[in-house]
Amino acid sequence: MTDLSRFSINQMTVKQLSLPELADVCGQLGVSQVGLWREPVQAYGVEATAKLIREAGLTVTTLCRGGFFTAIDPEARAAALADNRRAIEEAATLGTDTLVLVSGGLPAGSKDLRAARERIADALAELGPYAEQHGVRLAIEPLHPMYASDRCVVSTLAQALDIAERFPAHQVGVAVDTYHIWWDDQAPAQIARAGASGRIHTFQLADWTTPLPEGVLNGRGQIGDGAIDMREWKGYVEAAGYTGPIEVELFNDELWARDGREVLAETAERFVEHMAD
Amino acid sequence: MTDLSRFSINQMTVKQLSLPELADVCGQLGVSQVGLWREPVQAYGVEATAKLIREAGLTVTTLCRGGFFTAIDPEARAAALADNRRAIEEAATLGTDTLVLVSGGLPAGSKDLRAARERIADALAELGPYAEQHGVRLAIEPLHPMYASDRCVVSTLAQALDIAERFPAHQVGVAVDTYHIWWDDQAPAQIARAGASGRIHTFQLADWTTPLPEGVLNGRGQIGDGAIDMREWKGYVEAAGYTGPIEVELFNDELWARDGREVLAETAERFVEHMAD
Repeated sequence: MTDLSRFSINQMTVKQLSLPELADVCGQLGVSQVGLWREPVQAYGVEATAKLIREAGLTVTTLCRGGFFTAIDPEARAAALADNRRAIEEAATLGTDTLVLVSGGLPAGSKDLRAARERIADALAELGPYAEQHGVRLAIEPLHPMYASDRCVVSTLAQALDIAERFPAHQVGVAVDTYHIWWDDQAPAQIARAGASGRIHTFQLADWTTPLPEGVLNGRGQIGDGAIDMREWKGYVEAAGYTGPIEVELFNDELWARDGREVLAETAERFVEHMAD
Repeated sequence: MTDLSRFSINQMTVKQLSLPELADVCGQLGVSQVGLWREPVQAYGVEATAKLIREAGLTVTTLCRGGFFTAIDPEARAAALADNRRAIEEAATLGTDTLVLVSGGLPAGSKDLRAARERIADALAELGPYAEQHGVRLAIEPLHPMYASDRCVVSTLAQALDIAERFPAHQVGVAVDTYHIWWDDQAPAQIARAGASGRIHTFQLADWTTPLPEGVLNGRGQIGDGAIDMREWKGYVEAAGYTGPIEVELFNDELWARDGREVLAETAERFVEHMAD
């Protein structure tokens, strides 16, 4: 293992590890950055997590996730906005400058993707300034089109940037995740577009493996196991000026069934193999 | 049921029906058009199918499917080209002018989508004139991006048209299938582009329902059951000048487990409900 300086392990990749275990294994392996998720952080306590992470000498690269902005019902919308304000506060407490957003799918009975995308922009108009006050940037993550109906109506980097560019870059940018965009021949140009306005707020890796599992949520492949040329995508974000952390975020039932320490060690090895210059 | 004049039932939607049963049920329901698949047609005999269909007064709107052009190995490429010539001949024998192409996924070990797309264009340069001699048009079908690695490296209408436009429109066009493109905010403009050069060779419907099943092949929803506004997409193809058949092509384990006559009747009803002006 040669260079893990840009490597960040997303907590979801090794969700079988508790937060203290995660901090411990990171120390053993020389991993200095982590991406965290709200649910396990809330369960452990936000302040307690911040203290644990700080004392372990770790940096939090992103917090996942805010979002779910597409409800039509006013009460549900107000609840989503309140929850996202809490997410922004949590990000600030954890010391990360980036909150990743999964924007939400179609409300029950609706078939109007365009209107749903507009409701995301409406929500960001309210949340962007609040995030800025807390030193947090919002990163719209386009999710693979297979999630368009039930999880995220923002399916491409172009769509994400069409929304993000309505706001200052220090308020709203995008998450570039190989798993979601690798098939898109327009994505390299969109990465350049995002970089030109300083909107690449995080770069995440997962590989594309098939067959996809039922529900298509937990089949993200270990780096190197699938169809994606990771080095090519690293080249695109670097050409666009991105020099930040590179986070590995895998949702994978097979990896979750294994020993978390072993999976983290393997992930770090794969990172070095596929990200080395 | 009011107007089935543009309705075509794709054989795969009711694959539990034999070809004589399909012809019989179509007669009972007033359905005059079918889309056929090569495997069941070959099993019944191509000439015998043509005779059956002719005597039942049915028209064949499309034959599915040619394609699988992405192999690198010269022997595999030659075999694919030979098989596609046979598919063109079968289409001509069945009296349809449209052969739908599923272009193929990444060859084992390859991560190069761009090169795979170029091999599709290479194959079409050989097959286009052969198709023209037989009065058959080739329709590149972009498949949903979730099939990009293992089934079809052509994921958007824009990509399909980038390839198709290298050839005369009477040789190569595209298949517009709601299931594959409904998430894509660029698709309406691409439908207009396809229409402007006379390249909409077929228009197919399937609805988007979740959760997706394992392998994501056999979860295409009955018209009206999912997230897609069918009338909106009909509007796009009609604004682009398309006045041809509208084929319903569902791959769905639940529909296949039911009585085929009942499924065909239901599909015709849904068609009328969602396609009526």
